[in-house]
Amino acid sequence: MYRDNLVKILVDVSDEEINRVWMREEDSYLPAVEIGAVVRAAGLARVVESRRDGVAVGDLVMGMPGWQDYWSIGPDEMANVIPPGFEITDILSIYGGTGMTAWFGIEDVCALQPGETFVVSGAAGAVGSVAGQLAKAKGASPVIGIAGGPAKCAWVVDELGFDVCIDYKSEDVPARLAELAPEGIDVYFDNVGGEILDAVLGNLAIGARIAVCGAISTYNLDEAPGIHNYANLIMQRARMEGFLILDYVDSFMEGIMGLAPLVTEGKVKYAVEVVDGLEHAPETLNRLFTGDHTGKLIVGVGE
Amino acid sequence: MYRDNLVKILVDVSDEEINRVWMREEDSYLPAVEIGAVVRAAGLARVVESRRDGVAVGDLVMGMPGWQDYWSIGPDEMANVIPPGFEITDILSIYGGTGMTAWFGIEDVCALQPGETFVVSGAAGAVGSVAGQLAKAKGASPVIGIAGGPAKCAWVVDELGFDVCIDYKSEDVPARLAELAPEGIDVYFDNVGGEILDAVLGNLAIGARIAVCGAISTYNLDEAPGIHNYANLIMQRARMEGFLILDYVDSFMEGIMGLAPLVTEGKVKYAVEVVDGLEHAPETLNRLFTGDHTGKLIVGVGE
Repeated sequence: MYRDNLVKILVDVSDEEINRVWMREEDSYLPAVEIGAVVRAAGLARVVESRRDGVAVGDLVMGMPGWQDYWSIGPDEMANVIPPGFEITDILSIYGGTGMTAWFGIEDVCALQPGETFVVSGAAGAVGSVAGQLAKAKGASPVIGIAGGPAKCAWVVDELGFDVCIDYKSEDVPARLAELAPEGIDVYFDNVGGEILDAVLGNLAIGARIAVCGAISTYNLDEAPGIHNYANLIMQRARMEGFLILDYVDSFMEGIMGLAPLVTEGKVKYAVEVVDGLEHAPETLNRLFTGDHTGKLIVGVGE
Repeated sequence: MYRDNLVKILVDVSDEEINRVWMREEDSYLPAVEIGAVVRAAGLARVVESRRDGVAVGDLVMGMPGWQDYWSIGPDEMANVIPPGFEITDILSIYGGTGMTAWFGIEDVCALQPGETFVVSGAAGAVGSVAGQLAKAKGASPVIGIAGGPAKCAWVVDELGFDVCIDYKSEDVPARLAELAPEGIDVYFDNVGGEILDAVLGNLAIGARIAVCGAISTYNLDEAPGIHNYANLIMQRARMEGFLILDYVDSFMEGIMGLAPLVTEGKVKYAVEVVDGLEHAPETLNRLFTGDHTGKLIVGVGE
């Protein structure tokens, strides 16, 4: 392989549950990762050697380094140099795919309006926690989170300012949604799929919009649990739309400019946990499925 | 009750499967029909007595007469006088809710483009048969119908000009869709829900749009069969959107002007069957569920 850039990977992100999808046998929006190949993952790397114009030793570059110690970037491979002044963990969380997913999901896919009833699942996750705060900042009311366990629910309400959080592990989600959104849900930001998606479909307002961002409850199953309330899309003239942040890469600067003031004013907070050591990547990825984390999980590689 | 207009109902339409939804115990987009009340239905009636300005004896009015011999229209009830020159059966089919549902589903909800791969279920039904012909007229390719039985499939292909029709009663729908749309389905006009919807969700092209018009396979069930392939909405950045023709009433003239030339040129054909006698309304409605009909079913009341 022609070696255009040889980079030392500083930080390798377990980029959401989506890594898990790439490991399935069938292709998704990218070809399946082959057995024996480097596990695909988005990340950030420090350049240790460069033969590409505009990329210097010491630069931070963002792209798809995968789970490895060194990343050799081919001539056609995407690797964007990050301007100085950013925190490394911020680039992989709030100003990276995570924050951008929340931003464009709310702004573009949902087109959330002030006063609308908003629900987000995976509310204590990297994307969900930012999405709920953005909804609050845009004037949605109420902003309802759904998360697993009292600690996550408390964090989402007390620290992040959600109006309320439903603990799906101990509460009856359809009953609570009916109680909290008696006129129906206007906008749902879906990170989980499955039964929770079905519960929301059963309680839509007219003209509702569902941004389908993830379906983490289903990725480890051979067949996703069925959803039954889809005919409600007709009755409520509602829309369900899937999106991938890859399609918004050219608009990232717009999203960063929109998010930065909210972060600075403290209206959008975010949690990042860095796990050191590439050898911890598999178990760290699994924590996305057991629910044993809050906010963004990143794996650190090298110094 | 104040009697504004007393009308003799000439034609009463079993207006698609949607009548069935109104008879469920729960409210839908309209309140549930109460036990003992007149069964709600769209239709056309001839005025036999009038105290409303602009409505004369002999006029044809369109509205919601329901299953009864005479319809007394209250002062606030909608009843539009139909201009002369239309065939009665056309007003209740191609230039009524049926044709308009196909038109706005294709033009507005799906925004179908030339060259796109198009699939419609209930292809021999009143709405589906028109939707497929509109798709063909717009240059979609291929135009794939899904219907039950060889007679309906033959009608759809030989008479209406669909490129192909899958017989869901004897063929493997997912396998046939994969074969006929190897690059994925761009637009799906869904009249049935259930397993066929799931099969289409499993074979979407990037940027696919699903217009959710009906879910007739589910209306007689306590719980709709689950759909499992919804996470494909994410992978393919696809959209699923429900709609009701009631929301397009103000744009009907635009739809009629769009359809009329296609009907005149013979590019859009339609089948109408009139069953005489109000006493046949229940069994005629049931034929929507057994599949024992082609095109539009209308019940005639009175002379």
